[in-house]
Amino acid sequence: MHSLASLLSKLTTYSSQNPFPATPAELYEPCDYILTLGGKRLRPALLLMACELFSDEVEPALPAAWAVELFHNFSLMHDDIMDAAPLRRGKPTVHTRWNTTTGILSGDVMLIYAYKSLAAAGAPDLVARLVEIFNRVAIEVCEGQQYDMNFESREDVALEEYIRMIELKTAVLLGGALEMGAWCGGAGAADAAALYQFGRLAGIAFQIQDDLLDTYGDPEKFGKQVGGDILQNKKTFLVLKALEVASAADQHELRNWMNTDAESAGKVAAVRALFDRNDVPALVAAEKARFQSEAFRYLDQVQVAPERKTVLRKMVEALFVREF
Amino acid sequence: MHSLASLLSKLTTYSSQNPFPATPAELYEPCDYILTLGGKRLRPALLLMACELFSDEVEPALPAAWAVELFHNFSLMHDDIMDAAPLRRGKPTVHTRWNTTTGILSGDVMLIYAYKSLAAAGAPDLVARLVEIFNRVAIEVCEGQQYDMNFESREDVALEEYIRMIELKTAVLLGGALEMGAWCGGAGAADAAALYQFGRLAGIAFQIQDDLLDTYGDPEKFGKQVGGDILQNKKTFLVLKALEVASAADQHELRNWMNTDAESAGKVAAVRALFDRNDVPALVAAEKARFQSEAFRYLDQVQVAPERKTVLRKMVEALFVREF
Repeated sequence: MHSLASLLSKLTTYSSQNPFPATPAELYEPCDYILTLGGKRLRPALLLMACELFSDEVEPALPAAWAVELFHNFSLMHDDIMDAAPLRRGKPTVHTRWNTTTGILSGDVMLIYAYKSLAAAGAPDLVARLVEIFNRVAIEVCEGQQYDMNFESREDVALEEYIRMIELKTAVLLGGALEMGAWCGGAGAADAAALYQFGRLAGIAFQIQDDLLDTYGDPEKFGKQVGGDILQNKKTFLVLKALEVASAADQHELRNWMNTDAESAGKVAAVRALFDRNDVPALVAAEKARFQSEAFRYLDQVQVAPERKTVLRKMVEALFVREF
Repeated sequence: MHSLASLLSKLTTYSSQNPFPATPAELYEPCDYILTLGGKRLRPALLLMACELFSDEVEPALPAAWAVELFHNFSLMHDDIMDAAPLRRGKPTVHTRWNTTTGILSGDVMLIYAYKSLAAAGAPDLVARLVEIFNRVAIEVCEGQQYDMNFESREDVALEEYIRMIELKTAVLLGGALEMGAWCGGAGAADAAALYQFGRLAGIAFQIQDDLLDTYGDPEKFGKQVGGDILQNKKTFLVLKALEVASAADQHELRNWMNTDAESAGKVAAVRALFDRNDVPALVAAEKARFQSEAFRYLDQVQVAPERKTVLRKMVEALFVREF
């Protein structure tokens, strides 16, 4: 079994052996740029680890792993335009450094290169199956982004709709990466399906944790400004939970805060206090824990020797912080 | 053999049996909208006709034909944003009727649905081959769009670069549609390759004719404003040919006109006179004829009985007007 570092090193080698063409530079430079901003390469790592559960040969899964990373970066490039985000990982986004046109077209070609990488994954049977999973997940990711944007202008978002949104927007891709990796490794349908559920549920738990960290994270450890979601009036899991469980007066107060602008004095402290007195962080942490433990139950179901699961289990466990 | 009308009717039935989901409506309504703006469905028709050269069963080619139409409409949706085009076929473009964000995301999902339709094309062997052709062509279409945009800010575009651009941006998709159709019908590699060349070369000829019609077309028959390319200072085949063959004084005059704005009085008449006295329309028509006849030589090479080619030959011939 390879370590995470060893798998990522193989992926880096593979990607450098399969570069974008040099021309037209205006099209491909932004693709290289976003790929070097330094993400964690979580999705391809999941895919490779899932493959290694079933096979000692991880190399055949590299094209599919790279396809998933390309898809993820395509979606970041287009989401950054849609969200008008100036920065990604502290660097200018593609449409900021170049322009919107570049962000659209370079994103498009990166999505097609994801399919090109997928098409290099092996025998036609495997390619056809991977393309089918990939299509399903990619469509869901677009739908998730649409729901996320819809929610911005809606006042009546229910918690279950929010969970469905984060499931589509981010969790299914983690599940899909694991499912594809399983097929690359020669798994049967039941194990591939269990790994999909593992990734999907862990992804939901991870997004809930992300909402918790944005408001309650340690400022030293949390990369972004703590309280950013509150300032931007985001309808996070915390807000939707509060609107479910808080007293009528507190619900009213929360709605009022969410109609103020980002600079309103005392906003973060007041909203946090409101969450606290309604026990929101504990309730949300419990939901997170529920998805997390359900996720790992699916990993337990996968029919391979427990020691083969160690690397994957540890990496996913490490995504979760203890305090939530 | 089916007529064009009969093939398009089968395509319409297929597409109505494979609709986009109802929700999220914000994502899928723009996809339905652009598909009902009423294009000629040229690309899927080519694909189905290529299939019918080799097989009496055209139904199995419908998913691939619809994939090509979805791809074409995805590229229109994104190109319209990049070109800031307010209208398409006399109706508001998607980003005008909705907004840029909608145009990006609905285009993205339509591209993925193209792959989804392709994945339904049949046995894994066939799907893998179709995806490979589709990827190659789709990448080239993006590259062509990039070159087209690059040329806007370049003063030194050579005619052969322009031909390469129109080849990538539009001609390879016609070739790819024919190539995919051939494989769907069970053709061998040589026939599939010949049909690709037929479509590619006919596509280049068609684009050259498009440039001619924009300046010299019959205002009664031509859908757009005659002279529009001249008003917008587009570096068309006519302009690039004139910059190759015209006298130094006329080249200088042409460059001057191309630095004036769209409303400059007498611009269309002056540039057209300049083209005429340098014999540009005849030279360009000769280039068009060269690509056109080369295209049909490839169709002649395809190893099926000549009468099977009649429907395809007639449809492509009908794309070309006699006067150029």
